[in-house]
Amino acid sequence: MKFSFKNDYSEGCHPNILQALLQYNSDQQAGYGEDEYSLQAKKLIKDKINHQNAEVFFVSGGTQANLIVISSILKPYQCVISAATGHILNNETGAIEATGHKILNIETEDGKLRSSDIIPVLGNHRNIPHQVMPKMVYISNSTELGTIYTSGELEELSLFCRQNSLYLFMDGARMGQGLTSEISDLTLEKVAELTDIFYLGGTKNGALIGEAIVISNQILQEDFAFNIKQKGALLAKGRLLGIQFLELMKDDLYFDLARHANRQAMKIKNVLKERGVRFLSDTYTNQIFPILCHDLIETLSEKFEFYVWKKIDDEFSAVRLITSWNTGDDAVDEFIEMIKNKI
Amino acid sequence: MKFSFKNDYSEGCHPNILQALLQYNSDQQAGYGEDEYSLQAKKLIKDKINHQNAEVFFVSGGTQANLIVISSILKPYQCVISAATGHILNNETGAIEATGHKILNIETEDGKLRSSDIIPVLGNHRNIPHQVMPKMVYISNSTELGTIYTSGELEELSLFCRQNSLYLFMDGARMGQGLTSEISDLTLEKVAELTDIFYLGGTKNGALIGEAIVISNQILQEDFAFNIKQKGALLAKGRLLGIQFLELMKDDLYFDLARHANRQAMKIKNVLKERGVRFLSDTYTNQIFPILCHDLIETLSEKFEFYVWKKIDDEFSAVRLITSWNTGDDAVDEFIEMIKNKI
Amino acid sequence: MKFSFKNDYSEGCHPNILQALLQYNSDQQAGYGEDEYSLQAKKLIKDKINHQNAEVFFVSGGTQANLIVISSILKPYQCVISAATGHILNNETGAIEATGHKILNIETEDGKLRSSDIIPVLGNHRNIPHQVMPKMVYISNSTELGTIYTSGELEELSLFCRQNSLYLFMDGARMGQGLTSEISDLTLEKVAELTDIFYLGGTKNGALIGEAIVISNQILQEDFAFNIKQKGALLAKGRLLGIQFLELMKDDLYFDLARHANRQAMKIKNVLKERGVRFLSDTYTNQIFPILCHDLIETLSEKFEFYVWKKIDDEFSAVRLITSWNTGDDAVDEFIEMIKNKI
Amino acid sequence: MKFSFKNDYSEGCHPNILQALLQYNSDQQAGYGEDEYSLQAKKLIKDKINHQNAEVFFVSGGTQANLIVISSILKPYQCVISAATGHILNNETGAIEATGHKILNIETEDGKLRSSDIIPVLGNHRNIPHQVMPKMVYISNSTELGTIYTSGELEELSLFCRQNSLYLFMDGARMGQGLTSEISDLTLEKVAELTDIFYLGGTKNGALIGEAIVISNQILQEDFAFNIKQKGALLAKGRLLGIQFLELMKDDLYFDLARHANRQAMKIKNVLKERGVRFLSDTYTNQIFPILCHDLIETLSEKFEFYVWKKIDDEFSAVRLITSWNTGDDAVDEFIEMIKNKI
Repeated sequence: MKFSFKNDYSEGCHPNILQALLQYNSDQQAGYGEDEYSLQAKKLIKDKINHQNAEVFFVSGGTQANLIVISSILKPYQCVISAATGHILNNETGAIEATGHKILNIETEDGKLRSSDIIPVLGNHRNIPHQVMPKMVYISNSTELGTIYTSGELEELSLFCRQNSLYLFMDGARMGQGLTSEISDLTLEKVAELTDIFYLGGTKNGALIGEAIVISNQILQEDFAFNIKQKGALLAKGRLLGIQFLELMKDDLYFDLARHANRQAMKIKNVLKERGVRFLSDTYTNQIFPILCHDLIETLSEKFEFYVWKKIDDEFSAVRLITSWNTGDDAVDEFIEMIKNKI
Repeated sequence: MKFSFKNDYSEGCHPNILQALLQYNSDQQAGYGEDEYSLQAKKLIKDKINHQNAEVFFVSGGTQANLIVISSILKPYQCVISAATGHILNNETGAIEATGHKILNIETEDGKLRSSDIIPVLGNHRNIPHQVMPKMVYISNSTELGTIYTSGELEELSLFCRQNSLYLFMDGARMGQGLTSEISDLTLEKVAELTDIFYLGGTKNGALIGEAIVISNQILQEDFAFNIKQKGALLAKGRLLGIQFLELMKDDLYFDLARHANRQAMKIKNVLKERGVRFLSDTYTNQIFPILCHDLIETLSEKFEFYVWKKIDDEFSAVRLITSWNTGDDAVDEFIEMIKNKI
Repeated sequence: MKFSFKNDYSEGCHPNILQALLQYNSDQQAGYGEDEYSLQAKKLIKDKINHQNAEVFFVSGGTQANLIVISSILKPYQCVISAATGHILNNETGAIEATGHKILNIETEDGKLRSSDIIPVLGNHRNIPHQVMPKMVYISNSTELGTIYTSGELEELSLFCRQNSLYLFMDGARMGQGLTSEISDLTLEKVAELTDIFYLGGTKNGALIGEAIVISNQILQEDFAFNIKQKGALLAKGRLLGIQFLELMKDDLYFDLARHANRQAMKIKNVLKERGVRFLSDTYTNQIFPILCHDLIETLSEKFEFYVWKKIDDEFSAVRLITSWNTGDDAVDEFIEMIKNKI
Repeated sequence: MKFSFKNDYSEGCHPNILQALLQYNSDQQAGYGEDEYSLQAKKLIKDKINHQNAEVFFVSGGTQANLIVISSILKPYQCVISAATGHILNNETGAIEATGHKILNIETEDGKLRSSDIIPVLGNHRNIPHQVMPKMVYISNSTELGTIYTSGELEELSLFCRQNSLYLFMDGARMGQGLTSEISDLTLEKVAELTDIFYLGGTKNGALIGEAIVISNQILQEDFAFNIKQKGALLAKGRLLGIQFLELMKDDLYFDLARHANRQAMKIKNVLKERGVRFLSDTYTNQIFPILCHDLIETLSEKFEFYVWKKIDDEFSAVRLITSWNTGDDAVDEFIEMIKNKI
């Protein structure tokens, strides 16, 4: 069986989570997120962002989080702005539009948005009432290209959004990986301060399912639970989400797992770099996009699974390698070994 | 701590499921329901209904299953018919209407629908195109009142639906409890044959999350997966659903658990009946609605949690008691003992 | 050709309107409701309700007005309360649900809502967040049964709504007929004061198309035009709506036309009453529902068109007769003559 | 008062229409499009396209037509492909997305789509079920840039769509202008044959309101009227639409009006061309986009209204001039005179 670098959700979950599920299994608990594990996990998250007036809600996955957040905040005629690589654009089967909202997309090099990207979009949407009204900016950290926001970049964008009455929403499906990147100077507390709403992804960082939506902006908190229920996202056994986030948040396990995933990717990246391999984008998280010759890709494919991301020319293609909280040293070492033998 | 008879989802899951989650935890699997556990579980379900051309899809919960099924089948101007007690009517925060579809509701005594209930509704919806077009009948087994369909009743309804071009959809959040009721003459195979689409509830029968949507009518199978993804219901780690249904379907554990839940409720019911207690409805599944005097309700409340369902008069109220796959003999015996001492 | 009492929209429009369309035909005007006729008509309406801070928007028809108003005001999880006879319930092909909102309906004798009807509905919708949140009350004046609200009744309902954070929306497809009823003590100014939003129907009172939505509650005015455009209701040649309402509002033509329609119905009603005919409901607007024997219905049907509304018994049925702004004395007199000869 | 070249809907309607409205005003007619004028007008349109099995429906405007057509045809997970200049993209306040559907847009030079534009979009949407499914191609003739499809181009696109199971929908808000362009070799009959559904625009070609949706593909006809009603587009006095299209279709008035509009634009275009003026795009319909120096634009603006469309450089900008069915020789001659004096 080949080892897979295709994504960060191909294994189960961190053993601590299974242990906790076993331990608490027979306890009778209130349903629909009112169980004590959920309440404790929410408390831990509020402590971590140092914002006791924030509200935390757990849902199952990223698409679900995105569609609930966006549809609950926007009025029918308002739209969301996203980088063209944004997950909501092409990877969610039109989930956002299915709730009635247009996405305005912006082509960017690195998957990140800056105020200079957004200004022309606002300028082109002033034919009232014949055009949708931009009201929210959607960003991801780390992005779908593995890149991250610096503290300065997020501050700039946040200020711009506030000045322009735009809500700032950060998709954190890979928030752990983003914040623990060796070049990140951003903290979770800062994220909570600079955005109106964001989520902490569990699915891609060691949980079975689960994203924790955190609403810092109190205006957006009102009645949010109704939206979760209406979209079919309120689990009867909310304990499943509560227990997972309780374990992930304890002792910063969440960040340790992400740091591990990043480290494994960086090991491979560094070896490739030493050997002069180019990359599609310069990433410091658990996704890397080396440009390899087709021969090497074929050889690696005999032992490993990964996506061939983009054809560069007749000789080279970029591949995408993703490591996870569970990617062991064996797999990484074997991969590196093969490279060393070949380049 | 009081023992709760409030619902059948207050505990975790059957130990076999946790055991399997542990066992398979490190295996790398394809995402989004293409893992081998999901494939095996689907096979087991198709075997059980003896219909290899059926399609099976796993989602997280009942509201999610309902909204995906209904919105994927109906055209924008079509509506669904439901008993007024139907879960979709008043317990899902308008989830069905949020997808654009009206629900026509019918008052019934026992929560079940018969062709005679539906005929007048069809008769009142012939002012084309000024009214919605009824196109689907939604039923539950067991119903929200704990009652069940006999084989003959379902045959009658199914025939009527086919003659009137109505799709028949059975909400099986408590399918196990319905089919293993001591008075049920219905089988899962028969359900698959007589309905167009139904689901097998896991959440209320020993799983952490999970409902298995089974589409017998091949016309309704096309592209169904798109709807699951679009509504945010496609789990990246579909293995979580696959492993659970694999365990539940093996050796009929699913039905054993439901039979246990029913049996515990019947034990209490029989004692109450012997003592002349009346019931709001005559049920043979894991929900019972005895009418008790307020003194007794108060006394029982000191040791047990349950819902006071409906005030009957100044002296009596009906309560709802629900037993689960995990309700032990101790709790049942203690409850019975208290009753015996009081009546 | 038989004369029709089937509805109040079977003829064209008042001649003044056609005259004005001819007169202004060649003028170049701004599009999308920015033409000077629309602006003048809006001014006249604001004068009439004595509320200069109200906002007025013209749309084509009643279903369109209803769906735009309701969907623009409610959040996704909020619903509207209506009498079971309300037009939005069964006569608009699920237009409201198609925008995502549930309608809670209340059975009433006379098509009107009172606080005592609404209180139990609010009481039954407190299982947060598992049920929709009632947020708007929809009423019609005159109602679909031809009945009207007195000033006292509307005051009572308005106060209740404000105390319970419910918006009050009056469908005025037959507002003229309601306010000019001989027993009405309500004025348009009072309607504007007691409701949050209402509309003045043109289609059923002498216009070709057109309803004037009036938003008294300033909170609900924001960005309303976006909703009109998004639902396809913003006419490029808004002049068509502006010119019509300009003519209708001038010198109170609107109310004169409605008064005429009512008067013609009352003439018939009074003759029938003198002869001891019973009525399904006691109306004082342009809709009457006399209960006639089947022989007489057959005879009348030879010369007139009307709906047989409801079978009473083997001998009698109620019919619905509607008169319009254009119903002439000839038709009314001939109808009365036939009755006199028969009863 | 300045003469306006801003659009083709700033005047009222063709006098024949007003004449007919007057003539038929007192006739009692069935409501909701069942009047005899509508039936006759539909017959005339079917004759003109020589397709008696087509179905014709009248609605009020273009955005309404677009949203009804697209939402009635597509399943929830399907999307529509449009040129980036398509009216549905940026000029309809997200009306299409509000019905739940994504629009995939393609940048093109001339506002037209060819199979070569669409092939890569299909290629990029094969990650089932994680992406929307392209199912319809939306085009306009004439386009928003004033360009038109040749018969050969439409044949090529139509064949491609049929081979790829894509519905082809032509927005004909300016169908008259497109088909009567001096360089058009396309006929209405051919349009009906090569598309699945299209509409004939009245609003921009001499009607007060009104677009005639023509469904050639019989699969798409079923139950279409329900969608019209549900979206609030079914006029009680459908006669208003019927009478207008009856007049427009009689003796080809519709095409005569469009030919006139085109001719007036071409007069101006030819003079400008003779004087060496460049154009943003080379159009042969009633929209022209000459590139003029800012001085000239200012001078013309003293007497005429028009949009400055796009800044070219510090000295020049493109303006948009639109002529209509009602643009008189006086205005055109005066405009030409001013140009001649200046260039």
